[in-house]
Amino acid sequence: MKNIKALVVSGSLLFAPAAAFSFEALPSTPPVPADNPMTAGKIELGKSLYFDPRLSLDGTISCNSCHNVMAGGTDNRAVSVGVAGLKGGRSAPTVWNSAFLSSQFWDGRAATLEDQAKGPILAHVEMAMPSEKAAVDRIKAIPGYVQQFKAVFGGNDPVTYDNIAKAIATYERTLITSNSPFDKYMRGDKTAMTKAAVRGMKTVEKIGCTSCHSGPIFAGPEMPVGNIFLQKFPVFPGSKYDNKYDLTSDKGRYEVTKDASDKNMWRVPTWRNVALTAPYFHNGSVETLDEAIRVMAKTQLDKKLSNKQVADIEAFLNSLTGEFPVQTMPQLPDYNAGTLVQID
Amino acid sequence: MKNIKALVVSGSLLFAPAAAFSFEALPSTPPVPADNPMTAGKIELGKSLYFDPRLSLDGTISCNSCHNVMAGGTDNRAVSVGVAGLKGGRSAPTVWNSAFLSSQFWDGRAATLEDQAKGPILAHVEMAMPSEKAAVDRIKAIPGYVQQFKAVFGGNDPVTYDNIAKAIATYERTLITSNSPFDKYMRGDKTAMTKAAVRGMKTVEKIGCTSCHSGPIFAGPEMPVGNIFLQKFPVFPGSKYDNKYDLTSDKGRYEVTKDASDKNMWRVPTWRNVALTAPYFHNGSVETLDEAIRVMAKTQLDKKLSNKQVADIEAFLNSLTGEFPVQTMPQLPDYNAGTLVQID
Repeated sequence: MKNIKALVVSGSLLFAPAAAFSFEALPSTPPVPADNPMTAGKIELGKSLYFDPRLSLDGTISCNSCHNVMAGGTDNRAVSVGVAGLKGGRSAPTVWNSAFLSSQFWDGRAATLEDQAKGPILAHVEMAMPSEKAAVDRIKAIPGYVQQFKAVFGGNDPVTYDNIAKAIATYERTLITSNSPFDKYMRGDKTAMTKAAVRGMKTVEKIGCTSCHSGPIFAGPEMPVGNIFLQKFPVFPGSKYDNKYDLTSDKGRYEVTKDASDKNMWRVPTWRNVALTAPYFHNGSVETLDEAIRVMAKTQLDKKLSNKQVADIEAFLNSLTGEFPVQTMPQLPDYNAGTLVQID
Repeated sequence: MKNIKALVVSGSLLFAPAAAFSFEALPSTPPVPADNPMTAGKIELGKSLYFDPRLSLDGTISCNSCHNVMAGGTDNRAVSVGVAGLKGGRSAPTVWNSAFLSSQFWDGRAATLEDQAKGPILAHVEMAMPSEKAAVDRIKAIPGYVQQFKAVFGGNDPVTYDNIAKAIATYERTLITSNSPFDKYMRGDKTAMTKAAVRGMKTVEKIGCTSCHSGPIFAGPEMPVGNIFLQKFPVFPGSKYDNKYDLTSDKGRYEVTKDASDKNMWRVPTWRNVALTAPYFHNGSVETLDEAIRVMAKTQLDKKLSNKQVADIEAFLNSLTGEFPVQTMPQLPDYNAGTLVQID
């Protein structure tokens, strides 16, 4: 959690649109840290690691198991399933366009994609490797990986936990969904969005959703990596939704910091491809996008929307579904010196 | 199990090489059933279904989870893990080149890839869908699939369990690993195999392995689909390996037929890419290829091989690792009308 700064928005005051809100098309390239430049070899290596279930204790769970890049970047479950059928506590966020976030995880506890990648490999309800060393040893035992790490990172001992994370993060930075109807609209094609979507776009600005859902992926303003754009949820507690969807028992960032001011504070999630990532919210408690819109309007803005407003906003959010770049499958390097995964 | 005929080989008598054994390069196309012709659209649909975890009860297990086409077509585990961490009873066979088998499963209980595909979706320790209808309903709820099924199969109600299986089988028929060193050698490139591999090739013929491991994928002679090429394992019981690797408690084909003559009878597995599919045998009890060679020589031919013979045979088996065709990832059609998978 070093180098993480939290930017807290109380209500919608700080970013309330004084002038017209600035909608932005998605850039084609994300920020890249100076100490982890993107190379073709590193992307390929990271892709293999991302899809390799051997990075989990029993050889069954890969990054892709929960953050499925063949779909909207999630598993479309309320919470994910890790090794031995164990379940996580929060809904898997999408990996698509996560390179544009200035912090990772629902509570922003990782500053970078590199830091994020290190978490699930060791989490006992996810990939459950017992230690960084165990993960490194698993990869070191696969000759094809050792060759790839040498080619990509150089040095005598390139298979390290840091470099595993660097490679995975590099692959993730290629996962960008450009050319959504919204992006085409922003670049001048006024036919790309439906009339309902255009109305919804105006509505989210007018009622204040874009106070938080701003920036190129609608997850807050562009900030240097390591800054968390946090928001309270619910801002207006006491609605019927608090109990119905159990919105408050998970205290969000407070669970990390134990600072009372962090209670029920959450990193603002992206709207990009949100139509593909049901169910919604940190606990996956809300099944449909229209209901998520109603809940957010009530809990964050204390507004009850008309059915038409909800439908318009849903149309706008649908216009944020981008094009998924065609990817080739990795061919995972083989291990033929016995059973690599000894866990039954 | 209709239309399945079992061809039983007692010992190595029936196919003992009177003349020189006929080694064959792998054909580039497999047999295709007349009622399920291959089309580009069907291949793409089948690929999506193959990779779609939504075909499992809790949305976590796809065909690819256990038959990983990004690796050697298996999960490199002794037995596979299905929903809720449940384990299967036999080791997952490779999907690569399975189109050349005349029957499917370790006991040959499915005649075709189509019949095979219908099994794991409903098996409670694998994908665990409660019924064919439940699987069909799951797919029918995804509009993109319905469109694809209409385009591929036509008709008013094209999303059927039969058609799901037909599409998956069609994709699987594209999974062929050509151009192994052995195949190049057979086509005239005498430098493609190492000297040890060539010696091993002569040894497997001389000592009788190819009595059963014959044909283009070394899983028995080419036969019409639905014929099972069965062999007893162990042919020579009583060696130390029977207990060490628990070779006899699973009765193989007998578990299906309850016919005493089927006790410990198994479909002969392929040698293609066998170096990538450890651990070995129906129960995954043997970790390394050299040990698998020693076990087979003793239990099937009553021979104790020298270390050099084992090394030569291993070199030959390594020369059967083919080239894996580059594949694009499917983009799974989305479901955005709620949580498709209601099981927690």
